[in-house]
Amino acid sequence: MREIVIGAAQMGPIQKADSREAVVARMLALLEDAARAGCTLVVYPELCLTTFFPRWYHEDRAEADIWFEASMPNAPTQPLFDRARTLGVAISLGYAELTPEGQHFNTQILTDRAARIVGKYRKVHLPGHVEYDTERTHQHLEKRYFEPGDLGFPVWRSQGAVMGMCICNDRRWPETYRVMGLQGVELVMLGYNTPSVNSQHGDEGLAKRLYHSELTMCAGAYQNATWVVGVAKAGDEDGHPLMGGSVIVDPDGMVVARATSEGDELLVHACDMDLCNFGKTTIFDFARHRRIEHYGLITERTGAVAPAP
Amino acid sequence: MREIVIGAAQMGPIQKADSREAVVARMLALLEDAARAGCTLVVYPELCLTTFFPRWYHEDRAEADIWFEASMPNAPTQPLFDRARTLGVAISLGYAELTPEGQHFNTQILTDRAARIVGKYRKVHLPGHVEYDTERTHQHLEKRYFEPGDLGFPVWRSQGAVMGMCICNDRRWPETYRVMGLQGVELVMLGYNTPSVNSQHGDEGLAKRLYHSELTMCAGAYQNATWVVGVAKAGDEDGHPLMGGSVIVDPDGMVVARATSEGDELLVHACDMDLCNFGKTTIFDFARHRRIEHYGLITERTGAVAPAP
Repeated sequence: MREIVIGAAQMGPIQKADSREAVVARMLALLEDAARAGCTLVVYPELCLTTFFPRWYHEDRAEADIWFEASMPNAPTQPLFDRARTLGVAISLGYAELTPEGQHFNTQILTDRAARIVGKYRKVHLPGHVEYDTERTHQHLEKRYFEPGDLGFPVWRSQGAVMGMCICNDRRWPETYRVMGLQGVELVMLGYNTPSVNSQHGDEGLAKRLYHSELTMCAGAYQNATWVVGVAKAGDEDGHPLMGGSVIVDPDGMVVARATSEGDELLVHACDMDLCNFGKTTIFDFARHRRIEHYGLITERTGAVAPAP
Repeated sequence: MREIVIGAAQMGPIQKADSREAVVARMLALLEDAARAGCTLVVYPELCLTTFFPRWYHEDRAEADIWFEASMPNAPTQPLFDRARTLGVAISLGYAELTPEGQHFNTQILTDRAARIVGKYRKVHLPGHVEYDTERTHQHLEKRYFEPGDLGFPVWRSQGAVMGMCICNDRRWPETYRVMGLQGVELVMLGYNTPSVNSQHGDEGLAKRLYHSELTMCAGAYQNATWVVGVAKAGDEDGHPLMGGSVIVDPDGMVVARATSEGDELLVHACDMDLCNFGKTTIFDFARHRRIEHYGLITERTGAVAPAP
C-alpha cells in the first residue's frame, strides 16, 4: 500500500474584479480543510488565480498581461506556499506564466511537501482560436494568448509515486495520458475551465459536456492504469458559466469522488498507488501488448488525411 | 445526410460441438431480420463461425487448425455471401484465418453490397498468453494461436463513408482508433469475445467489465468523431460465459443502441456519417490542435519506463 491522501480543490467562479489576494484567501481555506482531512497533496484548477480571461478579447495582446504571473511564488501567492510548507501539504496549481523572455504559457506546477516547486508543465493542447470569431456565442482565445507548451509531458517522482500533469483540453487527447503512461505515471493531475455552453453548438447541453469530460478522464485512467484527479473552476464568471464535475478517478477508470456543486468544494480520497500495479502488469502491460510498428501515423501526421473518394 | 442503416448482429454462444453450417444458419436469420429493417450493412462478431477456441489448450498447436478457415468465402459460408448479395446487404465478420503460407491470424473482413470482399483486417493487439498458465482460472491463448496482424489499421471507402475495423482487445487501445482517425475514419466496426470473468481477477465483476468495454468504445468514438459499432459473441459456451453489451456509438461518444440479451440479437440504427463532421472540424480538428512533436514516445517506446526511484 502506497497511499496518498489527495484533495481535489474545485474552485467556484472568479470575477474579473476579484483580486489575486482574495482568490488566495479562498485557496488557503481549501488548504486548511484538506490538511484537517489528512491530505498531503492538494490539486487546484487551471488558471486558478484569475477569471478565465481567454474569453475576453484584447485587440492589443499585451493588455492581457495583467492576467499573467512573472514569477511563482510571487507576492500574492507566497502566503499559500508558506502555509502549505507549515502544514506539510504539497500543492499543484495552474496559472498564466509570463517568462523573463516574454513567452506566455498556460502552466501548472507541482510542489513537494516543503513547498519547493518540483515539477512544471505547460499546456500542449490549446483549444480555441487566435482572432475574434464572430460565429461564436463567446470567445475562447487561448491560441491568442498562449504559446503551446514546450516541455512535453514529463513525470516526476514525489511522495513515492510517479506524477504527471496536464491541463483542461489536454484531457480529451489520448496522447496526453499515453505519453505519461509510457513513463509509468501513477497519478495525473489536471485542472480545467470548461464553459458550460459549447460556443459553436449551443444546444449540446451541460449533461453531455460533463459526460465528455468524465469519459476522457476515465478512459485515460483505465487505459494507462493511473489515478486521474481532474479539478474544475466552476460557476458563473461575469455572466459566463463554467461547468463543475471535478472527479477523482481510480486506475480502473472508476470515479471514486465527484463534486456536486459549482462552488469552492473539496474532494478527498486516499489514493493507493499500488492499485496501478494490476493493470500495468496484465491487460495494459505495454511491453507485452503494444505494437508500435502499426502506430506510425500518430507521430508522422498531424492532421487527418482521408482516402480519395 | 449520408445515412447508412447498420445492423449490429450480436450472436449468442457457439458450443464446441456446433457445426459451421449451424452457425451460418443463425447468421442468415440475423441477415434476413436486418434486411427487413432496411440495413445495408451488418456487422457480426469476432471469430463468429466457431466457439471462442483460444480458451482451449492444444499442446500440439496444429490441432487448433480445425478452428481456422483456409479460404473465405468457403463452403459453409458461401450461402451467407450469396444471400447477402441477393439482399444487397454488405457484411463484416470475424474468423480465424489460415493463409496459404501457413500463417494464422484473427481476421475480420468487410464486403460491399455485392458481397465482394473490399477490406481485410488482422487483429493487432492479441491479449493473453502463449503457454498454459496454471495461475489463471481459464486460459486465453490468443498469443499461442495467432500472429499479430500485419496489415496495420487500414480504412476503405464504401457506401460513401470511410470505414475501418478492429477486433476485441484492440478496442481498449487508443492507438487503434487514432491511427484510423488520422485517415478520416467515420465508422469503426469491431467484434469481440470477452469472458464475463477476469481470469486473473475473479471478483472484478461483470458490471465493471461491461463498463470498461463501453468506456473504451465511447472514448474512441468521441476522440475521433467516428461511429463505432461493437458486436459481442455472448453467453455460455461449454460452461465459459462471455459477456454481451453490444453497442452502436455515435461520433459524440453517445450510445444510441445497446443489446439487452446474451443471445442472438440485432441492433439497428440509421447512422448519419455527416454527424462526424462537427467533431472533425472543431474540437478534434487534428490539423489545428495536435502537437506531434510531443508524442514521440508513443512510437519510440513499446513498454513503459519509469524514472529511477
